[in-house]
Amino acid sequence: MSDTFSSTDDLRTSGTLRYAQSVVFDEPLQLELGGEIPRVRCAYETWGTLNEEASNAVLVCHAISGDSHAARHTADDSPGWWDRLIGPGKYIDTDRFFVVCPNVLGGCRGTTGPSDVRPSDNGPSDVRPYGADFPRITIGDMVALQRMLSSHLGIEKWRAIVGGSLGGHQALTWVSRYPEAAECCIAIASSPRLTAQSLAFDVIGRNAIQTDPCFYDGQYYDKPKRPDTGLAIARMLGHVTYLSSEAMEQKFDPDRHDPREIASSFEQRFSVGSYLAHQGEKFTTRFDANSYITLSMAMDLFDLGAHRLALMETFDASECEFLVVSFSSDWLFTPKQSRDIVNALTALDRKVTYAEITADGGHDSFLIDTYIDQYGPLIQAKLGPIDRVEPTINTAEESILDLIPTTASVLDLGCGSGRLLRALAQRGSERLVGVEVAQEKILAAAAHGLDVIDYDLNQGLSAFIDKQFDVVVLSATLQAVENVESLFNEMLRVGKQAIVSFANFAYKELREDFVVRGRSPRAPGVFDFDWYNTPNRRFPSIADVLDFCETRHITIHQSIYVETGTRRVIAETDDPNLNADTAILVLSRAE
Amino acid sequence: MSDTFSSTDDLRTSGTLRYAQSVVFDEPLQLELGGEIPRVRCAYETWGTLNEEASNAVLVCHAISGDSHAARHTADDSPGWWDRLIGPGKYIDTDRFFVVCPNVLGGCRGTTGPSDVRPSDNGPSDVRPYGADFPRITIGDMVALQRMLSSHLGIEKWRAIVGGSLGGHQALTWVSRYPEAAECCIAIASSPRLTAQSLAFDVIGRNAIQTDPCFYDGQYYDKPKRPDTGLAIARMLGHVTYLSSEAMEQKFDPDRHDPREIASSFEQRFSVGSYLAHQGEKFTTRFDANSYITLSMAMDLFDLGAHRLALMETFDASECEFLVVSFSSDWLFTPKQSRDIVNALTALDRKVTYAEITADGGHDSFLIDTYIDQYGPLIQAKLGPIDRVEPTINTAEESILDLIPTTASVLDLGCGSGRLLRALAQRGSERLVGVEVAQEKILAAAAHGLDVIDYDLNQGLSAFIDKQFDVVVLSATLQAVENVESLFNEMLRVGKQAIVSFANFAYKELREDFVVRGRSPRAPGVFDFDWYNTPNRRFPSIADVLDFCETRHITIHQSIYVETGTRRVIAETDDPNLNADTAILVLSRAE
Repeated sequence: MSDTFSSTDDLRTSGTLRYAQSVVFDEPLQLELGGEIPRVRCAYETWGTLNEEASNAVLVCHAISGDSHAARHTADDSPGWWDRLIGPGKYIDTDRFFVVCPNVLGGCRGTTGPSDVRPSDNGPSDVRPYGADFPRITIGDMVALQRMLSSHLGIEKWRAIVGGSLGGHQALTWVSRYPEAAECCIAIASSPRLTAQSLAFDVIGRNAIQTDPCFYDGQYYDKPKRPDTGLAIARMLGHVTYLSSEAMEQKFDPDRHDPREIASSFEQRFSVGSYLAHQGEKFTTRFDANSYITLSMAMDLFDLGAHRLALMETFDASECEFLVVSFSSDWLFTPKQSRDIVNALTALDRKVTYAEITADGGHDSFLIDTYIDQYGPLIQAKLGPIDRVEPTINTAEESILDLIPTTASVLDLGCGSGRLLRALAQRGSERLVGVEVAQEKILAAAAHGLDVIDYDLNQGLSAFIDKQFDVVVLSATLQAVENVESLFNEMLRVGKQAIVSFANFAYKELREDFVVRGRSPRAPGVFDFDWYNTPNRRFPSIADVLDFCETRHITIHQSIYVETGTRRVIAETDDPNLNADTAILVLSRAE
Repeated sequence: MSDTFSSTDDLRTSGTLRYAQSVVFDEPLQLELGGEIPRVRCAYETWGTLNEEASNAVLVCHAISGDSHAARHTADDSPGWWDRLIGPGKYIDTDRFFVVCPNVLGGCRGTTGPSDVRPSDNGPSDVRPYGADFPRITIGDMVALQRMLSSHLGIEKWRAIVGGSLGGHQALTWVSRYPEAAECCIAIASSPRLTAQSLAFDVIGRNAIQTDPCFYDGQYYDKPKRPDTGLAIARMLGHVTYLSSEAMEQKFDPDRHDPREIASSFEQRFSVGSYLAHQGEKFTTRFDANSYITLSMAMDLFDLGAHRLALMETFDASECEFLVVSFSSDWLFTPKQSRDIVNALTALDRKVTYAEITADGGHDSFLIDTYIDQYGPLIQAKLGPIDRVEPTINTAEESILDLIPTTASVLDLGCGSGRLLRALAQRGSERLVGVEVAQEKILAAAAHGLDVIDYDLNQGLSAFIDKQFDVVVLSATLQAVENVESLFNEMLRVGKQAIVSFANFAYKELREDFVVRGRSPRAPGVFDFDWYNTPNRRFPSIADVLDFCETRHITIHQSIYVETGTRRVIAETDDPNLNADTAILVLSRAE
């Protein structure tokens, strides 16, 4: 084992990689699809200092065309591809964490790949690169090499493994293969496997490379020309899939017919064509066609499971916390795919936070500073520690708090920025999950260290399993629910009990509005809107909800009626449907 | 001028094209971007019989890889690409209409294109195909040739010009260039120009062809090999853009890793790869690479306007009716792009119907029988005649009808299946437009021959111009409106007057529910729902709406209050806010 570059030593001095180190492992790497690589070099960069307990190490995994240079090392170093995220005082704070970013197996930026010399027993006369003889590898193999690197660095357990795109695939593979290897898995703009559409684009890209006459079945290294045309076309195609249609419109439509003139053999009639020609050709100067084929094939073979049960099996042994982030305009690795992962983790009762960031940058959003500033705080919160500040809760929330045993697991539907959950956490509750759909509230709740999942309640709670929580709370949210019937069914399926608090639309002041003035009622709180601008869509009275429960055989264990203005509890005998403005019901349904 | 095939005579016997005819024009075709084609052949097929007045001719325009064979000619003929749409008794009924489908200029299926012999003055020794010397053409040039064909056939005015995709571009170009050439323009799955994303895919496809070493700068016809690899790759790429991601998932995910084995030099590791290899290679046997470049470039140069003002200028002179249809999952020519066309036509006060069909077939949906059965009736209705059946209208609608002068132009917001508009049409009103968002209602209204536009009222009426209509009607829809304030502003901007009819939530029976029973009120009509399942989101009383109008300086010209159960009109003095269940207000706003 030796810390040195071999044939790619030049990379170390090639600008961005001047801080890269490498380690060569002399034991063979056994490959998942058969075969082995007898001797493997792994290039990597590090930032910060590993503490004595080796408990502050964060592994960063890169995307298909990335490399080990995730962030700058000094002020005058070139910026890394995740510079906004990683550095002193940044979201992944290198003053506190020891950050490691290795180049992937099969790549061409320091770690062993197809362009490296293949070991041979035939002596110095048989020196030639792997080329097409480089074995077919998987993301599992990439991770296996990273694991060898962990041992080499003396890291038994990562504080977190973080990655975007193919890097997210690596992070997910790590924790499914080696359940005890990390405390936290952070997958950004990732997926359980590729959609058929994304797979198709990869296939077409590989076809362009492999049918390039300069490909020579992968043995082009000693030829005068490389398959640059095919590689450039593959890259152009990739580039389109990384951007959203909106982003391309903004970028190319203002000067659609006025392309920047560049020296290129590709068509440049349109500005988007000139841009793609430039990107495609630039790529061929820094990337190897065989590596592109190897890595894109590994990504296409990647498959954590096609459906929830398969995904649950994949993550069954995992023990870590998860943070999953997707971007609304990402059509390569769609938000739906991230949700598939989250749904499996949710059903397994893993600690998971999920946010879909509204972004028009497409898949590339995960590399764009604006969006890093949105999801960065979530990573920061997962890495901890969290400053816990006592939240201010209202009368109804106080009553709910009193109804929940300290030991109970709680799911809060429409949790907002997590006021109730934070109060429960302060009180010592351990298993707390929030569901919320408003992005700024999700980000706020997650930044408080809460597990919060970006779900639209109106789509149901199908991700959760039967009786997963002791208590499911629906607090001051009923007025916004689209499908009340199915949400009640779901709450009572997922929770052993449900606590529903809601504003009473038949409260005397509201009735007076209606009867005396003949106007659509309004009142302080959730009903403080005019008829023409209220976001509410349900206006039930206490009697309405009690009727609803009765006809649906829902048991009411306890009911608390409050006039919140006076903080007065209204007795059952004191006509709460008239005198209380808020009701809190504890419900369950007999099996 | 002679009706004969020359070099492509073989096409006539090649199965699908055996009913094709052709005409050769000896006068030169002057091209839009300069230059001319001295002698042009146009291949076409016809169905049905041209009537004596030549008033029953329908022009059908095909997409990039289509040809003249739109439909079968006999029972044993091979089916055409629009067989479900065109034929005896079908939506475009060849028992009534004379249907003409020409192959496009620049193609390779009979009409002059790059693979044809280029005329030369140097005698028989200089016989060679155009190849790359074929001039750069536009969709305007394709249409110019079709216009020569019209004259040849004795057709001065088409009953309709119909096309999908590139065929839609041709139809739109026809009516913008030659305003009197058609009574009706039908553009299916079309756009005013390509998005930057779609343009990018075309550019990459052309790059694949033009960098194929067998392309020989387009002069490959006498070479042993043609640029089939590049053409196949371009076709694979095109194919992905024609399908939606959902359609690909359904098609390829069940056997993702189990590809059909085919003889091909392209990658076949995945089933989607095997499919694309097959499609790509099949395409090279029936299509010419230079034609593909010529046609895709014409499509990329196509630009009716980047914004509404430009589009309004484009269609300013047009006089025909329009039918525009898009498909929800079409990401090549998106619904938004069709709406851009419709918005311009709407602002020009053209007769236009627009429907966005919910479809998971992507761009190809326009060729899929299921969806043809949805939009086919709209084409049939546009071609006429319409069976007009007297609709049954209710009390409130009767009152509205009485308030509208017979000569008034009317916009009905939330027109449903067009009951009120049909009653107005029966009564003799001429300029009637409906806006609706529910697909089955749009299809029903359009099939009744009404102009109906697929708009979500909650997105505003920005497509319409100031004071475009004498009367804007909002009948029994207020309870479903998201942004009341902006909709009222828009109604009063677009209409000289607005008529709003709505159910009164303070009607005595509803108040009683609330006060006596303490329950969320319900009543026959739009309020006939429970609190937990009502689709309504606004519950105003008459007094509420009057207050709203007063504070917003909206003038109430007339108000009619009705108790619909008894059909009794409630006088102003008889507390309509208590005694009427429905109000009809005639409103306007001072300039």
